[in-house]
Amino acid sequence: MTDLRFDWARRDRTGVAEAVLAEGKSGAQIRQAIVGAQTRQSSLLLTRLAAAPGEELAAEIGTAFDYDAVSRTAILDHGLLPTTPCDALIVTGGSSDLPVAREAQRTLRFHGLDVGLLADCGVAGLWRLTDHADRLRAAPAIIAVAGMEGALFPVVAGLTPALVIAVPSSVGYGVAVGGRAALSTALATCAPGVVTVNIDNGFGAACALIKILRPGAAPAHAS
Amino acid sequence: MTDLRFDWARRDRTGVAEAVLAEGKSGAQIRQAIVGAQTRQSSLLLTRLAAAPGEELAAEIGTAFDYDAVSRTAILDHGLLPTTPCDALIVTGGSSDLPVAREAQRTLRFHGLDVGLLADCGVAGLWRLTDHADRLRAAPAIIAVAGMEGALFPVVAGLTPALVIAVPSSVGYGVAVGGRAALSTALATCAPGVVTVNIDNGFGAACALIKILRPGAAPAHAS
Amino acid sequence: MTDLRFDWARRDRTGVAEAVLAEGKSGAQIRQAIVGAQTRQSSLLLTRLAAAPGEELAAEIGTAFDYDAVSRTAILDHGLLPTTPCDALIVTGGSSDLPVAREAQRTLRFHGLDVGLLADCGVAGLWRLTDHADRLRAAPAIIAVAGMEGALFPVVAGLTPALVIAVPSSVGYGVAVGGRAALSTALATCAPGVVTVNIDNGFGAACALIKILRPGAAPAHAS
Amino acid sequence: MTDLRFDWARRDRTGVAEAVLAEGKSGAQIRQAIVGAQTRQSSLLLTRLAAAPGEELAAEIGTAFDYDAVSRTAILDHGLLPTTPCDALIVTGGSSDLPVAREAQRTLRFHGLDVGLLADCGVAGLWRLTDHADRLRAAPAIIAVAGMEGALFPVVAGLTPALVIAVPSSVGYGVAVGGRAALSTALATCAPGVVTVNIDNGFGAACALIKILRPGAAPAHAS
Amino acid sequence: MTDLRFDWARRDRTGVAEAVLAEGKSGAQIRQAIVGAQTRQSSLLLTRLAAAPGEELAAEIGTAFDYDAVSRTAILDHGLLPTTPCDALIVTGGSSDLPVAREAQRTLRFHGLDVGLLADCGVAGLWRLTDHADRLRAAPAIIAVAGMEGALFPVVAGLTPALVIAVPSSVGYGVAVGGRAALSTALATCAPGVVTVNIDNGFGAACALIKILRPGAAPAHAS
Amino acid sequence: MTDLRFDWARRDRTGVAEAVLAEGKSGAQIRQAIVGAQTRQSSLLLTRLAAAPGEELAAEIGTAFDYDAVSRTAILDHGLLPTTPCDALIVTGGSSDLPVAREAQRTLRFHGLDVGLLADCGVAGLWRLTDHADRLRAAPAIIAVAGMEGALFPVVAGLTPALVIAVPSSVGYGVAVGGRAALSTALATCAPGVVTVNIDNGFGAACALIKILRPGAAPAHAS
Amino acid sequence: MTDLRFDWARRDRTGVAEAVLAEGKSGAQIRQAIVGAQTRQSSLLLTRLAAAPGEELAAEIGTAFDYDAVSRTAILDHGLLPTTPCDALIVTGGSSDLPVAREAQRTLRFHGLDVGLLADCGVAGLWRLTDHADRLRAAPAIIAVAGMEGALFPVVAGLTPALVIAVPSSVGYGVAVGGRAALSTALATCAPGVVTVNIDNGFGAACALIKILRPGAAPAHAS
Amino acid sequence: MTDLRFDWARRDRTGVAEAVLAEGKSGAQIRQAIVGAQTRQSSLLLTRLAAAPGEELAAEIGTAFDYDAVSRTAILDHGLLPTTPCDALIVTGGSSDLPVAREAQRTLRFHGLDVGLLADCGVAGLWRLTDHADRLRAAPAIIAVAGMEGALFPVVAGLTPALVIAVPSSVGYGVAVGGRAALSTALATCAPGVVTVNIDNGFGAACALIKILRPGAAPAHAS
Repeated sequence: MTDLRFDWARRDRTGVAEAVLAEGKSGAQIRQAIVGAQTRQSSLLLTRLAAAPGEELAAEIGTAFDYDAVSRTAILDHGLLPTTPCDALIVTGGSSDLPVAREAQRTLRFHGLDVGLLADCGVAGLWRLTDHADRLRAAPAIIAVAGMEGALFPVVAGLTPALVIAVPSSVGYGVAVGGRAALSTALATCAPGVVTVNIDNGFGAACALIKILRPGAAPAHAS
Repeated sequence: MTDLRFDWARRDRTGVAEAVLAEGKSGAQIRQAIVGAQTRQSSLLLTRLAAAPGEELAAEIGTAFDYDAVSRTAILDHGLLPTTPCDALIVTGGSSDLPVAREAQRTLRFHGLDVGLLADCGVAGLWRLTDHADRLRAAPAIIAVAGMEGALFPVVAGLTPALVIAVPSSVGYGVAVGGRAALSTALATCAPGVVTVNIDNGFGAACALIKILRPGAAPAHAS
Repeated sequence: MTDLRFDWARRDRTGVAEAVLAEGKSGAQIRQAIVGAQTRQSSLLLTRLAAAPGEELAAEIGTAFDYDAVSRTAILDHGLLPTTPCDALIVTGGSSDLPVAREAQRTLRFHGLDVGLLADCGVAGLWRLTDHADRLRAAPAIIAVAGMEGALFPVVAGLTPALVIAVPSSVGYGVAVGGRAALSTALATCAPGVVTVNIDNGFGAACALIKILRPGAAPAHAS
Repeated sequence: MTDLRFDWARRDRTGVAEAVLAEGKSGAQIRQAIVGAQTRQSSLLLTRLAAAPGEELAAEIGTAFDYDAVSRTAILDHGLLPTTPCDALIVTGGSSDLPVAREAQRTLRFHGLDVGLLADCGVAGLWRLTDHADRLRAAPAIIAVAGMEGALFPVVAGLTPALVIAVPSSVGYGVAVGGRAALSTALATCAPGVVTVNIDNGFGAACALIKILRPGAAPAHAS
Repeated sequence: MTDLRFDWARRDRTGVAEAVLAEGKSGAQIRQAIVGAQTRQSSLLLTRLAAAPGEELAAEIGTAFDYDAVSRTAILDHGLLPTTPCDALIVTGGSSDLPVAREAQRTLRFHGLDVGLLADCGVAGLWRLTDHADRLRAAPAIIAVAGMEGALFPVVAGLTPALVIAVPSSVGYGVAVGGRAALSTALATCAPGVVTVNIDNGFGAACALIKILRPGAAPAHAS
Repeated sequence: MTDLRFDWARRDRTGVAEAVLAEGKSGAQIRQAIVGAQTRQSSLLLTRLAAAPGEELAAEIGTAFDYDAVSRTAILDHGLLPTTPCDALIVTGGSSDLPVAREAQRTLRFHGLDVGLLADCGVAGLWRLTDHADRLRAAPAIIAVAGMEGALFPVVAGLTPALVIAVPSSVGYGVAVGGRAALSTALATCAPGVVTVNIDNGFGAACALIKILRPGAAPAHAS
Repeated sequence: MTDLRFDWARRDRTGVAEAVLAEGKSGAQIRQAIVGAQTRQSSLLLTRLAAAPGEELAAEIGTAFDYDAVSRTAILDHGLLPTTPCDALIVTGGSSDLPVAREAQRTLRFHGLDVGLLADCGVAGLWRLTDHADRLRAAPAIIAVAGMEGALFPVVAGLTPALVIAVPSSVGYGVAVGGRAALSTALATCAPGVVTVNIDNGFGAACALIKILRPGAAPAHAS
Repeated sequence: MTDLRFDWARRDRTGVAEAVLAEGKSGAQIRQAIVGAQTRQSSLLLTRLAAAPGEELAAEIGTAFDYDAVSRTAILDHGLLPTTPCDALIVTGGSSDLPVAREAQRTLRFHGLDVGLLADCGVAGLWRLTDHADRLRAAPAIIAVAGMEGALFPVVAGLTPALVIAVPSSVGYGVAVGGRAALSTALATCAPGVVTVNIDNGFGAACALIKILRPGAAPAHAS
């Protein structure tokens, strides 16, 4: 039975490739996707792949299957795009936000973009952000990852002309549980130039960044 | 007493000008902002300005004060930027979403961008969207405004390589009341390339679009 | 002690048989229901039966006890109704929705209806739905299962004259957690002809479909 | 400017006509829809039309515009379908649910179905329901409207083989405010054969009923 | 260190004894309470005591420690009150509600009341309730336990002159998760004579019943 | 048309009379209930009746119609029960809770019980409660009305052997808005002997009190 | 009838005087409190007093009744404490937060403290805060008032050794509606030294500040 | 890679040291922080450190690493401040609140303050609080920890002139789950002088207390 109907044309149609969200899928369904990619000689990105199956698949497939336990992402490599360095940035509030930040970073790399990551820039010590002021101002766009109260999002937006793509992370407890407080900060802020994606959705933030930076998105009023 | 400390340098620092959110401010505070702008010979955008004070100010100040009752925005004109046509688009799900869509459109115009608006493209009749397929595919970025269940957001994202900036609108009743259902659709969708702003925040969506299209945001990997 | 008072007459009274919701019941209570059915020579449907007791009971009872691990349903077979093919359809947004879809499919089969299942038809690639346009239009009624943002529900409803019975699934994370976002889409949509049941309630959707298709429900205004 | 793009083909495509949800639309937009219908010699249904514009339009257009203040619906009559009597039923929990029940009843009449309404059948006095037991059992499908705690939905479902389309109404206070308690009852009940639509959505319930009763929905396994 | 300051005088002051809510307490704290009771030759009720420590304590203390795994309650018996039969009743919607119902029953027994329990009386088959009509009408007060949508509460209240103490149980999934839907039914119903306690709080319902039935509560207007 | 089917037998069946919840009913529906009562020479209680119709009806019907603007209740008097003094009590946290407390008091009076009211006993000054300690301890049952955080409920319950029927009131702002904080206190408290009704439901609390005090509820174990 | 039992001894017992929360009280109840204060020659603070009664009372009582329309507070002056200047500060995010900030400022003045107010210090332009760095560092404690996303709270806390008493204001729309987003920021932040009070509770923040600054609160470990 | 950028200067800047919130951090990140502190000869506080890594680190580092399993805190001791006794108090509602109370107590000790803890003072038996009345009145400030309904907060505030820092704990079930009911009590109370921190945030409450008691916070108006 063919449960999985993969959208192999999505990259051509929308600029980003379909990825496999492993969470909620059975082992058989995940393997079906990998075999499909291998058959087409196509590279494949998997997200939210737990450690046990991830490492098992890496052992089985070998170096073509690059699993990263921090971000729980895997890249099946049938010839990735060469990476281009890029001034866009990923910024995180705390070190607990790294899994989400790395999901974004590895999604960007899968699409050929090499983007820097500034960790642990929470606003309780503003110097951790202002130390990076020049890079923040020079970036064409910024992915900001933060849990707890998410005050990182408006503060970064006030320091840069770049669009800030907020990724609320599920780090926190009490009223912050599951990322709700950080999400409401991203949405409620009056600091202009903040947009948001779902909680912990590093993949989605990377897709947005790719769409902003694609050649076709060159500014119509730039001439 | 000077309650209002306006951020006149915001446009230079972040690419978008500070606007006055009139809702929640007293008449005296609104006038203080207008006088401040007049003194500096500066143009000024006001959002969520109710009809009564909006029309009263228009009568008093004259043609330099352009009030639009549908979007409840006013533009104090001390020499606006010349507008540049631009292939970005604003798309709405229903005709009730027009106030929010026009807030975005007028904010873009205030910043010198002339962006088209496609109204009443709800997914219950897909032909209303697919009729515009070419324009959707050619747009560098799209602002989509929808209330009710907000299914417009993922459907548009599946049809275009452009980033979709979702603006949930507060149109709807029952579980949709206040825009919550449309907001959760914008965040929960797995269609890649959808980012969102707060409910009814046409101004914020426009700011995001301006930041994406600004010259400085030219793709680093485009060469 | 007789905790469980089974409603053996429910099928005659309401058209659908009472099923045993195994979740939350003790092993002793589940066995009590099975013994009751065996004594009456009655077939029995069990839902949300975990793998361990399900497989244990299958080993013990033998082929008369058909346990399906994907849907976590079991059918105790004391002579099921012969199945009738039927043009109704089950459609899912993603492959992670299959457990719920199969609960519906197996409930229908228990009541003598053989209904087809179209998996992985999410709206991010509309071709996955439009490929099936003829079957969608010919169906007397459709069960649609989707998690995440649930945009499948209104899009299907716009393509068919059939009633769409939405089953939000608990697939998703962040604001979609537990199926809430998909549920609010099913309720909030203005696409007419969408009704909904509880999150993950494949059983309930099947019961609704059975009631729609029963002879007694033949259209009074059809003559 | 043409804001409103009406889906005149919806009845042919999906079996129910597009209606105008007047709430949230400007007077100009409502008139635009009416003029469009008059030009096409097409009948038109408007829902959630407030008393002031409803009566003003009735005075202006005359007998062809039938406004009902209880349900806040209007029917522009350019030749309605002849009505067919039908054994389906509308049942309400309390007399405060009548506005919603009549929105359903008038939507059905607009589509040619004459359906009876049993008011004030709340479960606090079960005799109010059991008095109607024969009609409940004979109905091909039932629309049940209830606010407060909505216990009407499972109780009716236990008395009849018909599908119950629950319409939670926004009648109630405290935890029932806005219809939330009745909605959760409709979704959470384990009484099989209950489906639900959005709070106060009498129109949607009627659309669902029409789709169930349409000739094309004749039971495939009835022969 | 004496963390636990037990309110040994509570029974005299308020009519019900303080019980130990074991959940959230450490093993040392639970033992401290038991030793305190043993020292005072006082009986003691423990609720929400998990199976492992419950059975370990029973093995250690012997027959004076009566642990019931279904309700997760333990009674340390230093001479309980003689039980008095009583026409009050405990009624449950489904067999999954038994743990909560038995917590109530055992709390009543601890205070000297022997109260009957009618299980599996859900409203989807009204005969399961109406079979007991005489006992319901004769009861001085009724504890009703139900999860899912909780329609049992208003239906019982409509059949009896007794006060109905509703205990929403956490049985259910989707919108019923954690007992929220049943709780809102108990609060929102307009059937008079329903009061409610917290979700799964069988202990609290029993305390309320004890207070209603105590001699001091004899009706002032009964003479 | 007869929308309203009044449950005239409810008092005989359940011990409390059906009352008319005027909120949400049309003027015609309210008059229909009054005329029905007048025809039967029956007394009638109306709750949540706004000032304008309440005073208009009082002017029209005369002294037989007793409208109280504070509690928004009306009593149509066709011979009320003689009142019996009774030691039960109504206690309020603040003076803003009086409308709810008086709805309870007048409902009790309608059923022949004359119950005292202690206003403004909030816990921020405990002396306001302890001044009444003797009456609290002597009461067979207590209705406590409180908004804000509702700490009155557990504190009263700790001072008396009586059952405390909590009525959360919608007094408060911020997180207390609509009575939610007081409701959660009433449910979450571990002070035994607190039961609750819906927010602002003084009528329901009175019905519960009547059922507790009725002769038939005399304690079975009292002899 | 004496509904209102004023806690005249509260100032002696707890350090802050009881104030009258006018919202939700009838005109008669408010006058009763004023007369009580006049009789005792006591000053009185009223909060949330609407403009109409506030100005009416000012006209009637004269200069001893100081009503401030912005904060909706009134001070009945029977000899206030002499004011002491104090380095504590009130800081607001936007000019719409002034009503709440002034409620705090006037409550402090009523208790004899003259505290400065820095308005419009939102974090979207950090210079608005850092301009005041010296005063922030020198303050013994700071009241911060902010609506929208409330990022002001953690940013101020990172700049000062003072305790920050956050007052979320109900300024905002969408997810910020009613102050919920700002409240969750105040609670969720990991910036140490932020405590919070209820939304819009300027009075409560002032009471907290008074308690911190009272002589009795002098640091025990300071010697 | 240096993920963690520790704010070693925070104590000098804000009066409290940065602590490591271990929850959500990897073992490698926690070790990196400890090594950083050891290198600088700096003491370090870790919170929410699970038992397994806590005890492993204690075994490895030795007596300089003091892990407390109840509060899940660890103190790396490179010369702590000498402790000063202090009349401030920590009060808890129940013995289940001790983990949170001890997190506060150990944070205070880390900063040189030795603060007493009164456990099990829940309001259902007021004598448990009034026994301590003198200490409550003498305290410069009080940390109160309570789960369930949190009525401890307003009752303590009514008994003392001290500021009450409420810490809602996640102890409870049903509507109290996760600490929400206790949090809403802390925020909603009208008892003046209550401020709150996030659920279970004993660390944050201690930081607030430190800031209140620091020499710099001596009352400006005390002279």
